[in-house]
Amino acid sequence: MCELMGMSANVPTDICFSFSGLMQRGGKTGPHCDGWGVAFYEGKGVRCFHDPAPCHSSAIAQLIERYPIKSENVICHIRQANVGRVSLANTHPFTRELWGQYWTCAHNGQINGFVAGPGPFQPVGNTDSEAIFCDLLNRLRGQFAEQPSQAELLDCLTNACAGYAARGVCNLLLSNGEWLFTLCTTKLAWITRRAPFGPAHLRDVEMAVDFQEHTTPNDVVTVIATEPLTSNEQWHACQPGEWHLWQGGESIRQGRLAD
Amino acid sequence: MCELMGMSANVPTDICFSFSGLMQRGGKTGPHCDGWGVAFYEGKGVRCFHDPAPCHSSAIAQLIERYPIKSENVICHIRQANVGRVSLANTHPFTRELWGQYWTCAHNGQINGFVAGPGPFQPVGNTDSEAIFCDLLNRLRGQFAEQPSQAELLDCLTNACAGYAARGVCNLLLSNGEWLFTLCTTKLAWITRRAPFGPAHLRDVEMAVDFQEHTTPNDVVTVIATEPLTSNEQWHACQPGEWHLWQGGESIRQGRLAD
Repeated sequence: MCELMGMSANVPTDICFSFSGLMQRGGKTGPHCDGWGVAFYEGKGVRCFHDPAPCHSSAIAQLIERYPIKSENVICHIRQANVGRVSLANTHPFTRELWGQYWTCAHNGQINGFVAGPGPFQPVGNTDSEAIFCDLLNRLRGQFAEQPSQAELLDCLTNACAGYAARGVCNLLLSNGEWLFTLCTTKLAWITRRAPFGPAHLRDVEMAVDFQEHTTPNDVVTVIATEPLTSNEQWHACQPGEWHLWQGGESIRQGRLAD
Repeated sequence: MCELMGMSANVPTDICFSFSGLMQRGGKTGPHCDGWGVAFYEGKGVRCFHDPAPCHSSAIAQLIERYPIKSENVICHIRQANVGRVSLANTHPFTRELWGQYWTCAHNGQINGFVAGPGPFQPVGNTDSEAIFCDLLNRLRGQFAEQPSQAELLDCLTNACAGYAARGVCNLLLSNGEWLFTLCTTKLAWITRRAPFGPAHLRDVEMAVDFQEHTTPNDVVTVIATEPLTSNEQWHACQPGEWHLWQGGESIRQGRLAD
């Protein structure tokens, strides 16, 4: 299994603190040493960093930890390979362009023998995760030639997810830069930080931050992760089938997949 | 105008030396301070680094300069904005997936008012460069549902390029990870290094390397750039309309666009 981390915020925010904890799980406090990647949205643009090397000792990861890239939507993944060998092409998050937007996706779980349905999007590597992402985009593109309303989009998205969840483990982070969609089928937790901000202590490494020093009273920042990243805060554990659409740090739509 | 750099090699090779010279043009020895980006292929995977900040002072560029990422096909671009504001979405190289391959493209030039033809590929930003790339992919995808032969592909590609060249300046680097395609309509130069390797001196910064210390006798490495990067070697200037298909450091197909 892998470790996921996502962020949704109402102001461009860096992930240096959370990433410092997460990267320890990439071969140090956790066994996920088969590569890692992160996607930062800035406006309509996205920049991704991928490395098939273990996260905790990666020169690129050290840059991400120190260099504050500010973003409103972030998707991060550290990998422990099950399906698909360790290679750059198999390193999440995956990116495709749909309707003039960059879509990115990272997946934790396994759906054995998954093959993407027909459509223009094809996997480049050989993970089930990328096949699921391509399948999802093929469904969206097949159903909507142009970007539909958010309600129509969510309907198509959650229907597809119900199918995936019925076939295996599918914890998912997905973004188009406007919002962050999260799906839990087994394990995902989240925390929303807003004023009054306080101190936080990482679980995976001796490090603390006082968010009050780095925020303004109007900031709202949600972090989503496979397992809580801090030891002194109350994280919310998602239930199986629970999904959220996050925008500006808030869960603006949420629900449970139909069984 | 912008600066392009590409590399094709028959063994995974880093670009640290060439990049050290190129990055100086990103705001120091050259005026191209409106962002930069680079795409490294490793097998079927590609990793891109994008930064809308000036190259010569970018923390990410400093990483690329020092951290040897080895690749057989590289596309690099430093930008001086003409069409499209300075933003991440407008930062080359651009990437799309076609036929289960990642395609990347960087462009130097300008085609006023260019709009991509119909098809699934749409620009995310608002540069003429990304519109040209999407147009090219829409033509390829429209003509071939699956990857065609190299001859058919080149035929479609060079026909499209002839149309672009007739409308404006279109120096282009394009790769799918298997090969690197280069098109010169105004300015592009290349050098192929092979045994016996010798010393090289950068033009833009006080730096020299003896390639013999870093190579084996069978290595073949071609570097393509808007302007020669070294001062003591003989670079070949491309003629207007000249294109090459590079693979393993060699120009395996070449020609001139039809007028």
